[in-house]
Amino acid sequence: MSRSSLFRFALQARDGQARAGTFTTPHGDVRTPAFMPVGTQGTVKGLVMEEVADLGAEIVLANTYHLYLRPGHELVHRLGGLHAFMRWDGPLLTDSGGYQVFSMAPIREVRDDGVVFKSHLDGSSHTFTPESVVDIQRSLGADVVMAFDECAPGGADHAHAREANRRTLAWLHRCKARFEELEGMGGYPAQTLFPIVQGNVYEDLRLEHARRIRDAGNWEGVAIGGLSVGEAKEDMWRVLDLLDGELPPDVPRYLMGVGYPDDLLEAIARGYDLFDCVAPTRNARHGTAWTSEEGQVNLKAARFRDDTRPMDPWCDCGTCARYDRAYLRHLVVAGEWLAVRLLSVHNLRFVVRLAEEARSHIVAGDFHAWSRDWLERYENGGPR
Amino acid sequence: MSRSSLFRFALQARDGQARAGTFTTPHGDVRTPAFMPVGTQGTVKGLVMEEVADLGAEIVLANTYHLYLRPGHELVHRLGGLHAFMRWDGPLLTDSGGYQVFSMAPIREVRDDGVVFKSHLDGSSHTFTPESVVDIQRSLGADVVMAFDECAPGGADHAHAREANRRTLAWLHRCKARFEELEGMGGYPAQTLFPIVQGNVYEDLRLEHARRIRDAGNWEGVAIGGLSVGEAKEDMWRVLDLLDGELPPDVPRYLMGVGYPDDLLEAIARGYDLFDCVAPTRNARHGTAWTSEEGQVNLKAARFRDDTRPMDPWCDCGTCARYDRAYLRHLVVAGEWLAVRLLSVHNLRFVVRLAEEARSHIVAGDFHAWSRDWLERYENGGPR
Repeated sequence: MSRSSLFRFALQARDGQARAGTFTTPHGDVRTPAFMPVGTQGTVKGLVMEEVADLGAEIVLANTYHLYLRPGHELVHRLGGLHAFMRWDGPLLTDSGGYQVFSMAPIREVRDDGVVFKSHLDGSSHTFTPESVVDIQRSLGADVVMAFDECAPGGADHAHAREANRRTLAWLHRCKARFEELEGMGGYPAQTLFPIVQGNVYEDLRLEHARRIRDAGNWEGVAIGGLSVGEAKEDMWRVLDLLDGELPPDVPRYLMGVGYPDDLLEAIARGYDLFDCVAPTRNARHGTAWTSEEGQVNLKAARFRDDTRPMDPWCDCGTCARYDRAYLRHLVVAGEWLAVRLLSVHNLRFVVRLAEEARSHIVAGDFHAWSRDWLERYENGGPR
Repeated sequence: MSRSSLFRFALQARDGQARAGTFTTPHGDVRTPAFMPVGTQGTVKGLVMEEVADLGAEIVLANTYHLYLRPGHELVHRLGGLHAFMRWDGPLLTDSGGYQVFSMAPIREVRDDGVVFKSHLDGSSHTFTPESVVDIQRSLGADVVMAFDECAPGGADHAHAREANRRTLAWLHRCKARFEELEGMGGYPAQTLFPIVQGNVYEDLRLEHARRIRDAGNWEGVAIGGLSVGEAKEDMWRVLDLLDGELPPDVPRYLMGVGYPDDLLEAIARGYDLFDCVAPTRNARHGTAWTSEEGQVNLKAARFRDDTRPMDPWCDCGTCARYDRAYLRHLVVAGEWLAVRLLSVHNLRFVVRLAEEARSHIVAGDFHAWSRDWLERYENGGPR
């Protein structure tokens, strides 16, 4: 079976720019739009993968940077690959480590041949090159491999962003060459390589990068990086609108790092398909939960002390089925670990389900009216 | 229905001093010997109560001191009692707060009418009296209520221990009076009050306390406190042997704070029935697990790095069914929350099952030979 037949993207419906599709991978199908829970270190924090599957997630993301440093990709490979290691038999994506190297590792040198960085764990020195990042992700064995990119920080000036784009494109060619070289050698599972479009909020850079990337290969998916990094929301929507016409049309579009409920709907409306964000589990660690009619709330608030309603009366997650706000608040205030677990289940289900509902409304052709009502209710407790 | 019919203890078998029984409560039966997981703040750390039931636990303990301070017993009572609050429909026991007041609360005054202590949370001043401790536990609504006791520290001299015993006995009479007074008033669920035998390692004090307590009421259970607090193991076994003949014979005997696997078997051999200990979950937080053939191990050890065996090949818990040591070690070393959860499930199942197995060997009449072999294998990796 040829590799290309193992990854497919079929569009079932369009509603304006919004798309409902199915992304087929060797480990199963992902119905899009879809939210991907983040399993940074090979675990979606605090949850077992059966729970992640139960909450409806069809694809999970893990971090190359973290797994490279600990426990090491060779060990994961020797133990049967990341799917086996983390007990997840479904579609899996590993990021390139670019974002972490540029945001977490404090001391570094960016050269045309790669990035020298220090481990945030022990200060030891490491180098990521386009080739090594592909090697690591080949060893991990996720279905989707991300190309190594330079993610210019939010607020970078035009020259800085242009230089990062130039490097990211050069690295993409080297990632692709290495990816194909390893494919020819055999011994690795079927994988696909997604490029990452950078360019910060600069329209000319985004357009040029998107065009050059589109022309650089026969991609089975494409990612948009460098957004949701501190820029104004309108800038993000402007870039997404702009890119819509320049991206390969028949592949899934992965908007990296986006995942707050309202942002998810705005991005889906603009034709984007895959999303990831650590907010559901990070918010849970802070005692924060999403609700359909009160937006984002923090359970430490005294008003939840004897509130016997579920976290969100409209939610179908296990937490909302069994626990009330009063008990959840007690767990949060008492610093109990179970609070994080139960709120992670709720928050993840909240965004996974939001993408599911968006999909069904795209298919039904009433996505935009539904989305407007949903956002109105989420933000203002209305319209009921 | 009279209260006395709601709590029963039936002995099914004896093997030497070891006993197999059934302790009946309004919320169900507890087959003894039994290990009780500790749900300090109304949660067995990190686990949902369905998991606690799945690992075979038939009774759970919660801490009066902690729940009194946070979220407050009145709130728990208003929300339907502790069973409803923590989603546990089985037998439930609350301790008296005595141990916490004497071990955690840093500044205090011990008077004949009660104990003045400062909250470990915010330094605020509180007073526990025998009456208030009964009131709190009546509000919480657990099946078993513990009498307020003065727990003299390990190493206390004879005079100190004797004074603590005198006070504990006086408090017991007041606890009993208050307990019966509230029972007469109605509005509370059926509960039973267990006295606590103190006396440190002093044989004369232990014997006298046990006799006076036995004569002070028609108890449906009795607890042994003030052991496993730093004394030599032989002192603990000596006291337990000594007390065997002085305790009410037809009620469950709860040995407080004992729960390491080897100690559990030694205490069961001496005729004790109920046990609790935070070690299973506390050890899990430190990356420590119990195994049948290697005793207690810490997963940080490098030898577990690529060990693809389950934590304990002889264990039937969910963790051992699905995960290997290499992955668990990665989670421990990476500081992942899931490690604590998975090891808590394993460690709790390990001791719950140990008590289950002890019971079946008591019934079969071969407890002592089995226990000797089990300890030999646990401590020395033999005899296989």
